Formats: sequence, C-alpha cells, structure tokens
Amino acid sequence: MLEEARLAERTGLTEEEVRSIVRDELEKGWKKDPATKKMAIIASRGTLDWAYPPLNLACTAAASGMEVSVFFTFYGLNIIRRDSAKRLKITPVGNPGMPMPVPMPDIISALPGMTSFATWMMRGRMRKHNVNTIAELLDLSKELGVRLIACDFTFQVFGYREEDFIDGVEFGGAAAFLSQARRAHTTLFI
Amino acid sequence: MLEEARLAERTGLTEEEVRSIVRDELEKGWKKDPATKKMAIIASRGTLDWAYPPLNLACTAAASGMEVSVFFTFYGLNIIRRDSAKRLKITPVGNPGMPMPVPMPDIISALPGMTSFATWMMRGRMRKHNVNTIAELLDLSKELGVRLIACDFTFQVFGYREEDFIDGVEFGGAAAFLSQARRAHTTLFI
Amino acid sequence: MLEEARLAERTGLTEEEVRSIVRDELEKGWKKDPATKKMAIIASRGTLDWAYPPLNLACTAAASGMEVSVFFTFYGLNIIRRDSAKRLKITPVGNPGMPMPVPMPDIISALPGMTSFATWMMRGRMRKHNVNTIAELLDLSKELGVRLIACDFTFQVFGYREEDFIDGVEFGGAAAFLSQARRAHTTLFI
Repeated sequence: MLEEARLAERTGLTEEEVRSIVRDELEKGWKKDPATKKMAIIASRGTLDWAYPPLNLACTAAASGMEVSVFFTFYGLNIIRRDSAKRLKITPVGNPGMPMPVPMPDIISALPGMTSFATWMMRGRMRKHNVNTIAELLDLSKELGVRLIACDFTFQVFGYREEDFIDGVEFGGAAAFLSQARRAHTTLFI
Repeated sequence: MLEEARLAERTGLTEEEVRSIVRDELEKGWKKDPATKKMAIIASRGTLDWAYPPLNLACTAAASGMEVSVFFTFYGLNIIRRDSAKRLKITPVGNPGMPMPVPMPDIISALPGMTSFATWMMRGRMRKHNVNTIAELLDLSKELGVRLIACDFTFQVFGYREEDFIDGVEFGGAAAFLSQARRAHTTLFI
Repeated sequence: MLEEARLAERTGLTEEEVRSIVRDELEKGWKKDPATKKMAIIASRGTLDWAYPPLNLACTAAASGMEVSVFFTFYGLNIIRRDSAKRLKITPVGNPGMPMPVPMPDIISALPGMTSFATWMMRGRMRKHNVNTIAELLDLSKELGVRLIACDFTFQVFGYREEDFIDGVEFGGAAAFLSQARRAHTTLFI
C-alpha cells in the first residue's frame, strides 16, 4: 500500500517544473545568505571620538548574533594598547564639525592644553550620558566573541611590541582582514 | 493524447540532472541577489567637503533604482540639522592634501578667519561648476526615497533635540543601520 | 541493458526531494558567490599616511585573485597625480593619535616646516622597514590588474586636467564606482 503511494508520487517532474522550484527556493534562500551574518571592520583612527564607532558597531552586531572581526591598523592600534586610556585624546583642531561650547578659530584650539581640555570635556559629556568607556567596550567585545586583530605589519613600522597590546588580541595582516571581509556583507573602513 | 504527452514528459529526472539544473539556475541567480540593489552608508563627518560623498553616492544609487539608507552619526549629524548651511565649514588645517591657491603652513591656515575663507573659497569653486548645494542634495535624496536616519544615541550625547533636524529624518540606533547593512553589498563608513 | 538501468534511475523525484537537493546545492553555492571575489574601494584622502591603506588592500586582494577597483575622489586624487611623490605629505596637526618622538601641542606641530619634518620622519621610518613607496604600489597595482579610476567630476571641480594623472588611469563618476560596488562584498570608503 505504502509502496504504491510512493510510486504514485514518483511520477517525476519536468525540467521546467524543477527550474521553477529552484527559483522559488533561491528567492527564500537569500535570507539565509551567510554574508548577512558577518561584519568585518577596519579601525584606523586613534582618537577618543573615532574609537567609539568600530566598538559600538561591533558590540551591537555581535549581540544580535553576527560574527564580527575588527582589524586595528595605523593610528587605530592605539585603541587596543594597554595604555589606551591615556593615549586616546580628542582635538577640535582641523575639525570645524565638532560642537564646541564657544566657536573658536584653530589658532586658539591649537594652543597647549586645548587637546587635554577637549578630551576632558568629551569624557565628561560621555560620563553624563552613561556612555561606556573604551575599556568597557573592549571587554564587552571580547565577551561577545568579537575577534580583535592587530595589523602585524603596521605595529612593527610604528615601533610597537606584541606586549604593548591588551590580552586577547590576535595578530595578522591585510590578508587576515580580507579573508573575513570577502565573506561579509557589512565591511567598513573607520 | 495530451495526457499521454504529459506522461511522456514526466519520465522524471535523475538526482544528478536536478543538481546540474540547480547549479545552472544558481549561476544566473547571482545577478538577482537582492544585496546588489541595496546600499547602507554611515555619514560621520560634519564638514562641507565630507558632506558631499554620502549624499552624492546616495542620490546616484537611488536614481539608478537602488534602495539607500544614510545613517548620520557623530559630526555627520551637522549635515541634517536645520541650520546646516551655516554649520558646514571646511578647513585646510590638518589636511595637507587640500589643494590651496598658495601653499601655507598650518600655523597660517589656523589663523582666525581662515576657516571662513576656505569655506568661502570652496563654495565659490562649487558654484562655478554648478555643484548642487547640500540642501539641494538633501531634497533630492528625499524625493528619490533615500532613508535619512539620525543616530538617536549620539544626538542626545551631543545635546541636540529632535526639532533641530530637517523634516523627513527618522531616528534610530546602530541596530537600525545594521539591519540595512547586513542585506546590502555596498556598505560605507564616510 | 543500459537502457533498462537508465529507466530504473528515472523513477523521478518528488517535489520535496527536489527542494531538498536545491537547499543542499545552495548551501555549497554560497562559497561560489561571485561577490566574494570582488572589492571596490574609494580613496578619498590625499596624505602620505592615508595613501597606503587603499593601495595595500588593493594589491593584497588582487594578488590573491580578487577583482579590484579603486576609485579616487576628492583629496584622494593626489595619490594618482604624476607629481604625487612631492604632493603626499603628512601632518600631526589635528591627529593626536599619531605617534610622535615627543608629545607636542598642535600650536607647535602647526609651525612652518613641521609638515615637512613629519613627512620626512614618516618616510624614513617606512624606508627603514622596507615599506614600498606609493609609486611602487601604484606600479604593482597596475601589474596585478587593479582598475584605477579617477572621479571625473571632482577632478574638474579641483581644476585638474587628464594629463595631470599617471598613465593607466580610467575616468568615471559615482555610477562607475557603484557598478563595481554593488557586485562586491568588500566595499570600503577610505
């Protein structure tokens, strides 16, 4: 009886029917594209303000189940140095887009002490809004499984050593970044 | 007669034949990948020069039928403020790559008035070449259906209010950006 | 005999069996996604330090068999000018993330001669580590088949002429970039 039913089902499909099924599955399949679940970021800037976007995006993505790699290169290496807390500064010089309490020409904001002042001001504003510190975001990244990769070539040119970096950092070159990026929809150079 | 013909067609395909059809359809299918039609941009800089690339790319992409989202964060929020016309400036300070009429050291370009001068010069050059203003590009973006999203977290830290932004702007966080970016081939941090 | 065997094979597959084959092939197919083999980069900055990332990434990707396009726009046009060697400079002004031999406030690093000094220092450090010059990387890019595209709109606004650029450069607008980027997983704005 069962055998008969199975044979009845197996009347076979024509090529056109098969192609139409394929197109239908493909349509649904795009949502399962593994590239939708991967993000690869390059963090290239080493100031307090620009340290936030790569880590914020990495934590948000990882928390929603994405696989994330952040590749630190050039000035971005500052972010993952052990002494990053005192290294990451901010300056209004050359950035007329930065909101300042009073407008000031670059000649004033370039004066000694102004970088410290701007850094202190930004830190205060962030504390007031309960923004995580960079150290907290790095800890969170690691907990969430974000891969932190230091550009091994750049850190040598800059005269840094492996022990200058926080624990949990991997080392790799541009090829390490590309092996992640080529499989990811979301790729950003920050 | 018809019935017979249909039965003749339904001799059935082997698994190998089906797999070969699937591979063939897949090959053609890549062109229909919905990710090829989506772009998600982060606009993070708030100067006159850097306001152009996100809006130029957004309008060009939307005009060719792509679905585009631009997420404004950090200094990029300046671009969609009601008073952006007077906020977006340009400075040669810290950018030795900027073409200047005469070479000048940063100490000169940092003098009071130089930002205004550089902004005035850039505006003149753009007017001469019939470049759209930022306000015009924002209007065009909206007409073309580009989604303009202000980072709700950053604008609070920066002390802005919802009413500071132009009409038609949505509000959202990093997750809003990622929900677009993960489905898009073209993702850029500008 | 053979005929009989073929007929036996052709018992036909049910729709469910076909769908399961499709899902299986799709799973394997993602690795063949042509977008994994394409990279489209925008190079927008025109200083010695920021000239490196687009060319380094382009050469590394092309050497591993990827199809790469680099679109030069805004200050990035400096990179492909014939006289780029003397045009590409570096300044610590406005970049407190740059490692300096001694810490210095912007007012000092903005003094006449400091850009030349920083450029000379960076060049020396790179020579010491056998880093390729930008000219060498451009030659390598061309050998590896990287497409170098100058933004035709921007170069006119900046007052450059076609003959200002090195040989082998193509000219195109934002649409030229997007036609590459929409088919590429790796898209970066540098």
